[in-house]
Amino acid sequence: MPQVETHTTFRTRFEAAAQRNRSLLCVGLDPDPTKIPAGVTVRDFLMGIVEATSDVVACFKPNIAFFEPWLGEGIDMLRELIAAVPRDVPVLLDAKRGDIGHTSEAYARAVFESLGADAVTLNPYLGRDAVEPFLRYADRHSFLLCRTSNAGAVDVQDLQVEGRPLYERIACLANQWNTRGNVGLVVGATYPAEAARIREICPDLLFLMPGVGAQEGDLEAAVRAGIDAHGAGIAVNASRGVLYAGGGSEGRWADASRAAAIQLRDQINVARAQ
Amino acid sequence: MPQVETHTTFRTRFEAAAQRNRSLLCVGLDPDPTKIPAGVTVRDFLMGIVEATSDVVACFKPNIAFFEPWLGEGIDMLRELIAAVPRDVPVLLDAKRGDIGHTSEAYARAVFESLGADAVTLNPYLGRDAVEPFLRYADRHSFLLCRTSNAGAVDVQDLQVEGRPLYERIACLANQWNTRGNVGLVVGATYPAEAARIREICPDLLFLMPGVGAQEGDLEAAVRAGIDAHGAGIAVNASRGVLYAGGGSEGRWADASRAAAIQLRDQINVARAQ
Repeated sequence: MPQVETHTTFRTRFEAAAQRNRSLLCVGLDPDPTKIPAGVTVRDFLMGIVEATSDVVACFKPNIAFFEPWLGEGIDMLRELIAAVPRDVPVLLDAKRGDIGHTSEAYARAVFESLGADAVTLNPYLGRDAVEPFLRYADRHSFLLCRTSNAGAVDVQDLQVEGRPLYERIACLANQWNTRGNVGLVVGATYPAEAARIREICPDLLFLMPGVGAQEGDLEAAVRAGIDAHGAGIAVNASRGVLYAGGGSEGRWADASRAAAIQLRDQINVARAQ
Repeated sequence: MPQVETHTTFRTRFEAAAQRNRSLLCVGLDPDPTKIPAGVTVRDFLMGIVEATSDVVACFKPNIAFFEPWLGEGIDMLRELIAAVPRDVPVLLDAKRGDIGHTSEAYARAVFESLGADAVTLNPYLGRDAVEPFLRYADRHSFLLCRTSNAGAVDVQDLQVEGRPLYERIACLANQWNTRGNVGLVVGATYPAEAARIREICPDLLFLMPGVGAQEGDLEAAVRAGIDAHGAGIAVNASRGVLYAGGGSEGRWADASRAAAIQLRDQINVARAQ
């Protein structure tokens, strides 16, 4: 068993941040050098976004894909970014990992120990033994891909398994695998009807809901479909819509991102109160 | 469209190496510091394995999971390792990536451009648009997870879709998505009956078959189930069984790995000739 801090779980910290900041918003930290204002480094831009929005969000979600093209420098920047997020805001690393058990152990060590993330996204296609090494970190959270936000989601996730789409079966497996209370699901905000079905199957799981903003999901429908019986239980992710709200303008980009985050947070709160 | 060299495809280079070295063996480069001989650095160990076996294999397959726990240093070591493999032996990066299209573009850039790999493993759960950014690199190869070698493979991959297991449907999708001739499949050597079914569905695709050696697949049954009509079309992967054949002994570890690789290569050749 790996040696990790176990005093506060991701879910507890997420709920505390959600309450303190009155927010179910997750801001995705996906650097795109072509959109970052001229004269601002990637590092300073991301640090600036964190500083400008950390009292408006319930968590942050860097996607490791956008750091990997810079090789070692990118990975070390990601580590530094995660460490710079205030302790009371948890960090979910979007990595969509999953491999045979022996290899998943190495991935889990990289994500939770070396990078220091509090939660991760995983791909369930390899089955339970590929997910288990991550779940052993009882204070962290693992979000399994269930119904993703992209158009191609239908190709595999909607295949009929005994008369019901595959993603519903993944939702059932997530309940079974959730013996430590640290399993969540990725449920695209672009498909509210599917999100409502998954919420019926998994009344208690935390949902990460990407696909608002640049991916143009219907925010209100998504929030109402995804929230649990307590009007919570979701992290609604926006990345490009918040990060590049300033349109590359010098000087006021952090203010523009903060304003966009506040607007989204408030829209989510209006939707969940209805 | 990304700017990449397109003069020789992965498949052509793989087949040339297979013919030159009379080998369908793929050696997995998965560093485990607890098993590397005392006094040998990870970098020197991996370079030594490449040097000792590059005339015995058809390709090499580092798994990025084993480099990620070392953060930037690990990723830069992986880049250096890939660059050090002789030009006439292609490198398949085991990464099991896959994300929505915009994000898969960043992953593909990282794998094929920054790291310089010739092929990659991908997870098909997100559908075609998640795979497409990789397939656009026409000279590279993308191996989709189909039926993996782990025990948990049954949890999702064996679910019945219209009376047939899901992995057979993935095999059908791989044929459809193979418009550029650069799609392959990951088919565990631990399940020969399943491998035979997948070969029926995909007579022309290249299979990566992990699971011999440490995972104790039946090598002969796997080879006979996986080979195509020409007695080829497979890359049989062994990682730990070759890398740590010397048992951590100082001095002769490279010789021990070379001997283990030759033995496996010859066993594969005996099986395919039957």
